[in-house]
Amino acid sequence: MSLKPISVVNSMSYEDFISLFGNVIEHCSLCAAAVWRDRPFSDVNSLHKSFCQFTDQLPIGGKEGILRLHPDLAGRLAMSGGLTNESTKEQQSAGLNTLTDQEKKTMHHLNQQYKQKFGFPFVICARENKKEAILTGLERRLNNSGETEAVTGVEEVKKICRLRLLDIVDSSSKL
Amino acid sequence: MSLKPISVVNSMSYEDFISLFGNVIEHCSLCAAAVWRDRPFSDVNSLHKSFCQFTDQLPIGGKEGILRLHPDLAGRLAMSGGLTNESTKEQQSAGLNTLTDQEKKTMHHLNQQYKQKFGFPFVICARENKKEAILTGLERRLNNSGETEAVTGVEEVKKICRLRLLDIVDSSSKL
Repeated sequence: MSLKPISVVNSMSYEDFISLFGNVIEHCSLCAAAVWRDRPFSDVNSLHKSFCQFTDQLPIGGKEGILRLHPDLAGRLAMSGGLTNESTKEQQSAGLNTLTDQEKKTMHHLNQQYKQKFGFPFVICARENKKEAILTGLERRLNNSGETEAVTGVEEVKKICRLRLLDIVDSSSKL
Repeated sequence: MSLKPISVVNSMSYEDFISLFGNVIEHCSLCAAAVWRDRPFSDVNSLHKSFCQFTDQLPIGGKEGILRLHPDLAGRLAMSGGLTNESTKEQQSAGLNTLTDQEKKTMHHLNQQYKQKFGFPFVICARENKKEAILTGLERRLNNSGETEAVTGVEEVKKICRLRLLDIVDSSSKL
């Protein structure tokens, strides 16, 4: 897909906008549907800022909800090919498709502990981390409070969102 | 599908909860993902109240976003069979599948005017209205301000949500 200039993004109907950006926050098309109101965007950074502002304004349940719409890393969906295209590429780039059996076991065990403790899955920007860093991060973040983890998770969602936007919008184009 | 007692609802993992209630607000699984945090629910009314509170707490862009995730009434998706199961049944119950050619034209024209003016589609609880009332309502609500319509639309979403919840949860069951 060729990168869209920001002028094209700004002239889209909400239907087309939601269909293009509906998964820059995983499974959460409400974010794109809300952000459309902030047009015109001066560039991809201002578009990203709108997504960040929307997530920041959500009540705590909404922030946790965003995390709950994310798949487990190297989890059941990844094993069965049921991830979104975006997640598949991201988990691969972190090397999560090359886990040894022992690493798989550890990841599964830590993921379960994490979900049990916090009521949402561990979310990390996989394109900015390799599998070793992810395993270490998961173990370390298990010690945090639920509130810290909701905020930390959403900050990771914003990084993922930024990289997904850069896969769609030409970052050199300005209003 | 048999109606679920509230005790079953309260014991669900967030994955199962989102998969069961993810469309009680059309295409907006974030709502279910957020509301799961409010367990245990004392009955279907308390579950509905959580959904209402979540939508009320959304910033205006989020309220409009909820509306933007709704299909046009008797629109392109309805014609092509692309609606969710819930919307298909609801639009049928209002008689929107029996519009005359003239009514279809009027509906399409008014829908377009409405979307042009407000930047989101006209939303009304189709199970509580017949096609004549819907056409009249659409024409009347076109005169409102955008802010009034965002609020009015979300109030209709809450009615739709309530009826969809009653299709899933046994309303006589209490905690």
